[in-house]
Amino acid sequence: MFETSFLPEVRGRWNRLQQKLQSEGADGLWISSNVNIYYLSGRVFSGYIYLPAEGDACFFVRRPVGLAGDRVFYIRKPEDVPALLAGIGVTMPRVLMLESDSISYGEYQRYAKVFANSEVRNGSVLLRATRAVKTDYELSQLRASGERHAEVYRTIPALYRPGMTDLELSVEIERASRLRGSLGIFRIAGQSMEIFAGSVLAGDNADAPSPYDFAMGGGGLDRSLPVGCDGTLLSSGMSVMVDMGGNFTGYMTDMTRVFSVGHLSDEAYRAHEVALAMQREMTAMVRPGVAAAELYNLCLDMAKSAGLGEYFMGHRQQAGFVGHGVGIEINEAPVLAPRSKDILSEGMVFAFEPKFVIPGTGAVGIENTFAVTSDGVEKLTLCDESILPLGV
Amino acid sequence: MFETSFLPEVRGRWNRLQQKLQSEGADGLWISSNVNIYYLSGRVFSGYIYLPAEGDACFFVRRPVGLAGDRVFYIRKPEDVPALLAGIGVTMPRVLMLESDSISYGEYQRYAKVFANSEVRNGSVLLRATRAVKTDYELSQLRASGERHAEVYRTIPALYRPGMTDLELSVEIERASRLRGSLGIFRIAGQSMEIFAGSVLAGDNADAPSPYDFAMGGGGLDRSLPVGCDGTLLSSGMSVMVDMGGNFTGYMTDMTRVFSVGHLSDEAYRAHEVALAMQREMTAMVRPGVAAAELYNLCLDMAKSAGLGEYFMGHRQQAGFVGHGVGIEINEAPVLAPRSKDILSEGMVFAFEPKFVIPGTGAVGIENTFAVTSDGVEKLTLCDESILPLGV
Repeated sequence: MFETSFLPEVRGRWNRLQQKLQSEGADGLWISSNVNIYYLSGRVFSGYIYLPAEGDACFFVRRPVGLAGDRVFYIRKPEDVPALLAGIGVTMPRVLMLESDSISYGEYQRYAKVFANSEVRNGSVLLRATRAVKTDYELSQLRASGERHAEVYRTIPALYRPGMTDLELSVEIERASRLRGSLGIFRIAGQSMEIFAGSVLAGDNADAPSPYDFAMGGGGLDRSLPVGCDGTLLSSGMSVMVDMGGNFTGYMTDMTRVFSVGHLSDEAYRAHEVALAMQREMTAMVRPGVAAAELYNLCLDMAKSAGLGEYFMGHRQQAGFVGHGVGIEINEAPVLAPRSKDILSEGMVFAFEPKFVIPGTGAVGIENTFAVTSDGVEKLTLCDESILPLGV
Repeated sequence: MFETSFLPEVRGRWNRLQQKLQSEGADGLWISSNVNIYYLSGRVFSGYIYLPAEGDACFFVRRPVGLAGDRVFYIRKPEDVPALLAGIGVTMPRVLMLESDSISYGEYQRYAKVFANSEVRNGSVLLRATRAVKTDYELSQLRASGERHAEVYRTIPALYRPGMTDLELSVEIERASRLRGSLGIFRIAGQSMEIFAGSVLAGDNADAPSPYDFAMGGGGLDRSLPVGCDGTLLSSGMSVMVDMGGNFTGYMTDMTRVFSVGHLSDEAYRAHEVALAMQREMTAMVRPGVAAAELYNLCLDMAKSAGLGEYFMGHRQQAGFVGHGVGIEINEAPVLAPRSKDILSEGMVFAFEPKFVIPGTGAVGIENTFAVTSDGVEKLTLCDESILPLGV
């Protein structure tokens, strides 16, 4: 299942969950989603993990063939599990937690039947809270992702050729990422958000409203995926906002940089400076115990003070947040939004993305991924933050 | 919401669903997933569709701003819906169908509360059956996707450079696809399967078992996404199986071709011919009324007769199907598997992918997307089917 050297790492994750299970009076947690299987075992497999409130996790595998280790059992279906648990002396839970917010109603019903004598409760909140605080190992994965992410971004000005469309530039960035080992995949919790690889927004396409809950929109190439680049020809006076995925390790960093074709409007440069000022203020303010909502409010106040409120986080349609947790998925806790109840703690990792859409120019602003330290933040995505001219 | 000219198309889809709702005694269907919102409106939006068993669909939109049309309402939350339905004289359903197999338990509970006086039933089966039979418009989208998919594949031999890895070749194919307008995204029903862009399998990596329920595996680049290319250096005597997504229109075609570095083993060429023979036999057999399971059994028998049973659909790990429906998602009905109950009917579209893994050489075989016609099949992915040498 995993190398022996990895056992302390996953056991640490189990223990943190187990403390929460115990404090909520639950006896076990049943995991079936790929992201949480990865979190609790260090790899994706088809099957299930049962984590009792005390003791080691049990792994029930359908595929791939060839996994071995303590408490690893091959099964055909979840209904095989109770007999296997009994066989190793693990008692069935009186109170069982399921991933209620991420598994389908059909799956939930099936597992509830497998654990027919258990009272079933929602374990999604507890999983989300646990995953929000990264371990040292997870931080190292995020740092590694951030480094390669930044490497790719440094090549962007040289990828530009006059006459390119936003799609063509996006494709060259996608290629550069993949050649540096990007896994490509963009994991998003929930079903409502979809995107491929990331987005490149040029000029007024940045102001095209999208159905998705990303910070920025874009019309997209097709009504089946209305987000991101739309085929705009990159032309003088346009800002080009690049917000492409940095998923090099199973842990994603999030990062945005803005480029220009020729010179942009003064308003665009000014708004960009305001976004950078927001980042400085946020950096000065963050420490364990700070409310995520405060960071949003800080930015909104600064946007309004600068007379840029109507362009903050979009113009025709405005996003209601300025940052979000990242990790295995792109939309983890904490959420930096006005009604967020999240409180920052050491080990949390979040993307901070104050952005503006300036009509006639496009999107400007910044996004970096930060880890909360014992007394501040560590920036994981280090790369020039000014508006760089393309092709120079 | 959509152009008036598109109304007959979506109304046709509503009508087919409404007939099924009526025959099952249901009064309405509540849709919240992106794929079914796209199916029933022709575009993705954030919100919901209520389809009564009679009359036009109602659209409840959260985002994007700016949609308009008959029965289009902007809402903040699903709890706003009952009052809006009452306002236009639509009665609340006695029996309501939900997407039980695709929405989360949490969502299901929320909608069940919104329709508190309705009996709630599983509408997923009915949606899957309806979407399995494509309309003429959907077939035109699939044909367009297939044409561009084939165009990309024709460029593959020239994309090869000696010394490339499987990842590097994959990246060049991804680039060629995107430059021809591929949306990139790979929609898969359910949560258990994940892939980025598709897979390139070189040599023995084709025999690395994967957790996912794809026809072939591959070790992948990372334990967080163990499928597809693994960094293998493309070397003489290896087969290179390319199975990349063809999602150019919101409707995906599925297509596999095999290439060689130098010359392959005789066994590999022989197995490839058996796969092509399977395709010929399948083509001769398909017509409305044929059981999907028969097509699987046909192939399994042919594989055994050829003495290739142990290599059919994998070797260390074998997939239990030889084809699957495609459309908005890559795993629609019908399923060509031994226990499938699906019966082919006119308008169904499926990928047929008889493949073999030959140890020491790699994967061989074929995959094309076919539409069931009134008396046979139409192939949607037309491109040379022999094993083509790379770099020639």
